[in-house]
Amino acid sequence: MKIWQKNIDVDAFVESFTVGNDRAMDMHLAAADVLGSLAHTRMLHHIGLLDAQDLALVQRELKSIYQNIQANEFVIEDSVEDVHSQVEMLLTQRVGEPGKKIHAGRSRNDQVLVDLKLYFRSEIQRLVDGIDQLFYKLIELSEQHKAVLLPGYTHLQIAMPSSFGLWFGAYAESLVDDLELLKSAWKICNKNPLGSAAGYGASFPLNRRMTTSLLGFDDLNYNVVYAQMGRGKTERILAQGMSAVAATLGKFAMDVCLFINQNFGFISFPAHLTTGSSIMPHKKNPDVFELIRSRCNKIQALPNEIALMTTNLPSGYHRDLQLLKENLFPAFQSLADCLEITAFMLEHISVKENILDDSKYDYLFSVEVVNNEVLNGVPFREAYRNIGLAIENGTFQPQKEVHHTHEGSIGNLCNDQIVRMFEEVKAAFHFDKVEKALRELIK
Amino acid sequence: MKIWQKNIDVDAFVESFTVGNDRAMDMHLAAADVLGSLAHTRMLHHIGLLDAQDLALVQRELKSIYQNIQANEFVIEDSVEDVHSQVEMLLTQRVGEPGKKIHAGRSRNDQVLVDLKLYFRSEIQRLVDGIDQLFYKLIELSEQHKAVLLPGYTHLQIAMPSSFGLWFGAYAESLVDDLELLKSAWKICNKNPLGSAAGYGASFPLNRRMTTSLLGFDDLNYNVVYAQMGRGKTERILAQGMSAVAATLGKFAMDVCLFINQNFGFISFPAHLTTGSSIMPHKKNPDVFELIRSRCNKIQALPNEIALMTTNLPSGYHRDLQLLKENLFPAFQSLADCLEITAFMLEHISVKENILDDSKYDYLFSVEVVNNEVLNGVPFREAYRNIGLAIENGTFQPQKEVHHTHEGSIGNLCNDQIVRMFEEVKAAFHFDKVEKALRELIK
Amino acid sequence: MKIWQKNIDVDAFVESFTVGNDRAMDMHLAAADVLGSLAHTRMLHHIGLLDAQDLALVQRELKSIYQNIQANEFVIEDSVEDVHSQVEMLLTQRVGEPGKKIHAGRSRNDQVLVDLKLYFRSEIQRLVDGIDQLFYKLIELSEQHKAVLLPGYTHLQIAMPSSFGLWFGAYAESLVDDLELLKSAWKICNKNPLGSAAGYGASFPLNRRMTTSLLGFDDLNYNVVYAQMGRGKTERILAQGMSAVAATLGKFAMDVCLFINQNFGFISFPAHLTTGSSIMPHKKNPDVFELIRSRCNKIQALPNEIALMTTNLPSGYHRDLQLLKENLFPAFQSLADCLEITAFMLEHISVKENILDDSKYDYLFSVEVVNNEVLNGVPFREAYRNIGLAIENGTFQPQKEVHHTHEGSIGNLCNDQIVRMFEEVKAAFHFDKVEKALRELIK
Amino acid sequence: MKIWQKNIDVDAFVESFTVGNDRAMDMHLAAADVLGSLAHTRMLHHIGLLDAQDLALVQRELKSIYQNIQANEFVIEDSVEDVHSQVEMLLTQRVGEPGKKIHAGRSRNDQVLVDLKLYFRSEIQRLVDGIDQLFYKLIELSEQHKAVLLPGYTHLQIAMPSSFGLWFGAYAESLVDDLELLKSAWKICNKNPLGSAAGYGASFPLNRRMTTSLLGFDDLNYNVVYAQMGRGKTERILAQGMSAVAATLGKFAMDVCLFINQNFGFISFPAHLTTGSSIMPHKKNPDVFELIRSRCNKIQALPNEIALMTTNLPSGYHRDLQLLKENLFPAFQSLADCLEITAFMLEHISVKENILDDSKYDYLFSVEVVNNEVLNGVPFREAYRNIGLAIENGTFQPQKEVHHTHEGSIGNLCNDQIVRMFEEVKAAFHFDKVEKALRELIK
Repeated sequence: MKIWQKNIDVDAFVESFTVGNDRAMDMHLAAADVLGSLAHTRMLHHIGLLDAQDLALVQRELKSIYQNIQANEFVIEDSVEDVHSQVEMLLTQRVGEPGKKIHAGRSRNDQVLVDLKLYFRSEIQRLVDGIDQLFYKLIELSEQHKAVLLPGYTHLQIAMPSSFGLWFGAYAESLVDDLELLKSAWKICNKNPLGSAAGYGASFPLNRRMTTSLLGFDDLNYNVVYAQMGRGKTERILAQGMSAVAATLGKFAMDVCLFINQNFGFISFPAHLTTGSSIMPHKKNPDVFELIRSRCNKIQALPNEIALMTTNLPSGYHRDLQLLKENLFPAFQSLADCLEITAFMLEHISVKENILDDSKYDYLFSVEVVNNEVLNGVPFREAYRNIGLAIENGTFQPQKEVHHTHEGSIGNLCNDQIVRMFEEVKAAFHFDKVEKALRELIK
Repeated sequence: MKIWQKNIDVDAFVESFTVGNDRAMDMHLAAADVLGSLAHTRMLHHIGLLDAQDLALVQRELKSIYQNIQANEFVIEDSVEDVHSQVEMLLTQRVGEPGKKIHAGRSRNDQVLVDLKLYFRSEIQRLVDGIDQLFYKLIELSEQHKAVLLPGYTHLQIAMPSSFGLWFGAYAESLVDDLELLKSAWKICNKNPLGSAAGYGASFPLNRRMTTSLLGFDDLNYNVVYAQMGRGKTERILAQGMSAVAATLGKFAMDVCLFINQNFGFISFPAHLTTGSSIMPHKKNPDVFELIRSRCNKIQALPNEIALMTTNLPSGYHRDLQLLKENLFPAFQSLADCLEITAFMLEHISVKENILDDSKYDYLFSVEVVNNEVLNGVPFREAYRNIGLAIENGTFQPQKEVHHTHEGSIGNLCNDQIVRMFEEVKAAFHFDKVEKALRELIK
Repeated sequence: MKIWQKNIDVDAFVESFTVGNDRAMDMHLAAADVLGSLAHTRMLHHIGLLDAQDLALVQRELKSIYQNIQANEFVIEDSVEDVHSQVEMLLTQRVGEPGKKIHAGRSRNDQVLVDLKLYFRSEIQRLVDGIDQLFYKLIELSEQHKAVLLPGYTHLQIAMPSSFGLWFGAYAESLVDDLELLKSAWKICNKNPLGSAAGYGASFPLNRRMTTSLLGFDDLNYNVVYAQMGRGKTERILAQGMSAVAATLGKFAMDVCLFINQNFGFISFPAHLTTGSSIMPHKKNPDVFELIRSRCNKIQALPNEIALMTTNLPSGYHRDLQLLKENLFPAFQSLADCLEITAFMLEHISVKENILDDSKYDYLFSVEVVNNEVLNGVPFREAYRNIGLAIENGTFQPQKEVHHTHEGSIGNLCNDQIVRMFEEVKAAFHFDKVEKALRELIK
Repeated sequence: MKIWQKNIDVDAFVESFTVGNDRAMDMHLAAADVLGSLAHTRMLHHIGLLDAQDLALVQRELKSIYQNIQANEFVIEDSVEDVHSQVEMLLTQRVGEPGKKIHAGRSRNDQVLVDLKLYFRSEIQRLVDGIDQLFYKLIELSEQHKAVLLPGYTHLQIAMPSSFGLWFGAYAESLVDDLELLKSAWKICNKNPLGSAAGYGASFPLNRRMTTSLLGFDDLNYNVVYAQMGRGKTERILAQGMSAVAATLGKFAMDVCLFINQNFGFISFPAHLTTGSSIMPHKKNPDVFELIRSRCNKIQALPNEIALMTTNLPSGYHRDLQLLKENLFPAFQSLADCLEITAFMLEHISVKENILDDSKYDYLFSVEVVNNEVLNGVPFREAYRNIGLAIENGTFQPQKEVHHTHEGSIGNLCNDQIVRMFEEVKAAFHFDKVEKALRELIK
């Protein structure tokens, strides 16, 4: 049964093609859909379109459906088109006539818009939790191994001394900037589109500020045409935020795959966290990091996929937008998994000590020798030339001591500053404000 | 002459392949490169690596080179590899020995990193100016034409009444969210990488906070490995911010191309702003908007291009990054042009009045009629069914009056709120702080 | 149980993360996996690594497993890692020791490579069937409606007369070129990688020509390192072929959405093939074509997604490649659906006659009038100027007769030539050769 | 002066925005544009629209302009919009009235279509030449170093023995499949769109088969609407063919950067083909290969960029398509450069012998040992288990002899077969047929 059904049956092939995976995807939106209706109906009562008795009934049963959803007792039936129809149908079965009144002043267009924003908010919060876990694990490892030196490469050529303190810390700081981007996605998500109806508003005197406040949004998507235009755009921006995190994880995974390779041999993981080969009995492969890299590259492809599916569409709703769910929704779980398993693997990482004792790394120290000449008064370009010639003549002698003291260097990692920046960005999300509003709404 | 040249000539083919378009691209960085050196040398003096006399000479001539650049009197010679080498060579020609001392404690890696960030900051500011111009033009048109109704489409089917007030205002509000994303790109740009040398720091006691302050940065990229990792990442994030603006402009251009089409005929531009055909003498084509759309789609492809060029590269500098200049630098001008010409075209737009008098738009008002029944006490689902059947039976009568009063609707555009949001985001850039620091540096 | 398992348990979290959706994806490969083993074991017997009795047992049970798969009686158990392990385990359960001998001379790497190529061949054949159906439906409609004129647009501006004959026929011809691209993907798929083992060959005297012939491949991937390198590359090239078809369907869907819009009104579909709105009772939306467009844009994003997941990986197998299944496999069904439903919808399309009687289309005929002057001896550039001025002065008179006779024009569609080209490309696939080989193998 | 100019000036800002870089890009099309006009005018004479005297004049001067172009004496003047206008204007200056007659029966739309196809054909031929050079260099190196063993990696972990014969040969064979894809792009390019005018044909009795034959095309784009639809599509398909070659080169470059790294140390290049560092005097960086990788990744991004710029555009010409020139044209030179410099660098590559003597590579031989047990009658799964346990117990003894004899393995590279496949694909281009036609046309 479709709620817009009149007296003509829609062809079955058309129906199965158009519904696609939408029922499965919509399960992610079920809780959000009920939250939206809780706010919308309280507003309808406030403007006189639902009397107190109807409101009480409707609120009670919506909360009951919300409990069903939390308890995994909610399904979208095969005969029902989407989550919005399922919730409305359930409600009407339970409360009768008042259930038929709740769609006044809204369209499925703004209903799905607000559902998406509520759902995205909860997924962003989950991602931020995962980032937080990984961030502090990286900071911990950076501090723990700050005295263990590593070769630093440029052009993948041995370049200058680095350290595990720098390596772990770099990825922690990378997450700070990623969080900045996620925060802008959050801000764009955290505005209320409800009340835009089919993208052109409604003739009822809706109180959009009231639903904004009830749902814990920071502000409104004011212009109703823009509220609709946010579909696809919000997804793309959110996918960009996710792809920033994915790029950081993917690069880290590439480093791990390189550093665990036997020619480098800088790090290792216990055997039970690696996998074998069907033909080579000696293999202990770093599959987890290869799959993190691959998943993260897939997530990096997401903003472009969304752009391709939405570009050159004129304003106003198009059914094309439905399919964005299939791209984006599974990516939340995938990225959350990647964050979690990276942190998990890092619980078990072993780092090799004394790597730089190997003479193949002697040239790492050439800049130190140049700089020592400079500190003794030789102009930089001359010192550089002297050491270059010594290397060519085979007379170069490394001084294997590293005295880096400036901000962010081997001897002065500034992890406290990185933590400070991380916490500053995180604080700007104000998750507590949202949680408080939603608790009020369902209590 | 290459500054790293020892006593072996690099093959000419290799040299021309590796230099590529870099000299042309580097001209964009010339002013930034001098600014970076002004700050770096003051810091070198501060930590005792450059005496007062050398500093004075170097500062004087760097400022003189800066004036040359502003006056378009600066070139990168064919025999010189890049802007960094050119500036250093010019300086050494003019001041002798002190010029050879200024590269102490830095590498071209962090030099180009800081140049890029300074350049990106100036380009972001230029884009924000262009967005500002267009934003207020859209708000002005929204107010001016708020009483002129338009058909609103969903699924590209006639749906509900809209208005020019809503249409122009929607794109203004879209720019607010785009600015939010650009702001996160700005924040990520506005951290100082100088002092990271080749991505592993230096053995000199560099004072990175001092250069941070002199160059007007908000904060540091602390970890030197992360500072280097920001190359490519910063570009990608900035390109994402730009692609948000581009997506807004591109969608607007698509609307314009549709609305100017004779089957719609909602808007028009004077003949001198359209172009003709080599075969059809009656044509007046909206080429400007087609090219805005095309340029903006090209910009939307940019983040993906950057991702493809940087993904799966392990940490540490790779020469691959050089080519990102060719992608990104021309996009700044292209997007600035698109912003400017959109605002320019909007100076001359004509909107058609009384569009909805045409009977083909009667169904636009079906929801109004449904809602009126609801206001008279009929449950929504029943009213919906009644009107649906009236339409099928041909007995539907539209009531062509639109009374939308809620926030963001035809009768209550809330443009003042949209302006407020815009100004709030814009204020967070703090361009004045940056301008003040740079004025100090070159005075 | 994993076939490479020794005496250490792999952590459960790691296992679930690394297996991911692989079991579900691998179900698509089950039939292909058995076909590969049928050929491999016959070859092992041929080179003396499997005696006649073992071969007979193994062949009998592999064919029995093949029947199970065809009858949907095959599952990959939760305790089993992938389809290769499942088939080998089943076989060993049924035949004992001989089952343990069949993996000699191969790795899962070349096993999945050959499975993929066999599977891709069958999916390509299915797509070609779908293209064939749609192609002939378009040709039929082109012939049927060849006399019905349409406005032709350039710059989305009314330009010159077109026709439904041209419109339908254009998309038929587009499929010819798409098929050309699919054919190159077919040729690249139709080479045998079996025998490359883990990408470095084997020390057994494998007879790779024999398996090539048994499996109906055209040729070998000779170099074993290249055979492995084909993973990811084959997928990307196949996705490009699919994206060509998708681009054609997507553009057609865009045209349909525009032409069905009330401002154009050139075509229509019966109500039971359109969908309604939850708020606007008059809506009959072309959702099918919006979803075709959206699915096709998603498919168009696929080659880039694969590129992002594989670029910058050095040669040799990486686990990253596993995730390509998730991208590509569902796209086969999605594209096949789009082809089928487009053909289905076209069964029911109505085209409007006499569209050009409307005076708004008068200018369509301006070029005809210019050309008539040219045929009367006026140089083209003068005739063009004359008519242009007549249009500006309002004195232009259209001659609404269209006499286009050259190849490919309104009056001479050349659909027979388009059919010829289509059949020529299709014939080069030689599906019959493949089918014959596989029938032999399983009989 | 614009050829469609009537009596209204186009605003200067609009003009500079719409022309953009088109003049510079159009220089690439100049020779093709004259070839198209040579064929078109001969056809106009054939159908009676140009008398013999006019034809003779026009042909003579077009050939003279062609000579000017070949001698770099042709420019597009600032006052002229594009190459088509420039050629027509030059011609009219030289021959007077007959010059004004040559545009009869065509539009700039089909003129640029045919120019592009002619230009693309010549660029494809140039790329095939470059591929040919590199292919035979790789085959030569494969044969030369076939006895030099390399470690083979899977998961970037030491896996099984490989060889330089396999490594070089793999990339040669990769180019075979790339050529297959380029061939399909060639076939799609090699059809004649001339005569489609503005995408809707013409009322003149054009003889399109005649121009097809004169220009050496294989066949026609028959349907005129499809001929126009080929714009953008041809570019995308060609970019996909180029991206296949780019992916091969990019992966090879990644291998080179890894193998030249000091931890691997498998290959080296002479110092004059590497570059230095501004801070580290010991560096000899493989910049050429990093830039090949980067350029090739940029080319790999091209098909997606084109898709983003063309998707969701309805049929018919849009000005958006103009910008595709800027994406694609420079990519031809870039890819040709990459092919050439790769072949050049390979002239100077040194490969290290006896790499596998290092004990860290002992496990490479574990599969050999397993296989030896199998050849002695132990079932594979048991032998695998035995060796696996020996490795864990530290009792494993490698047998460092490699006896791989099957097709495509270390001892049997089958380079002759790879050459055969390459030559078979190359022969199908039939460049000679095209060259012969064009020689006729301009003689």
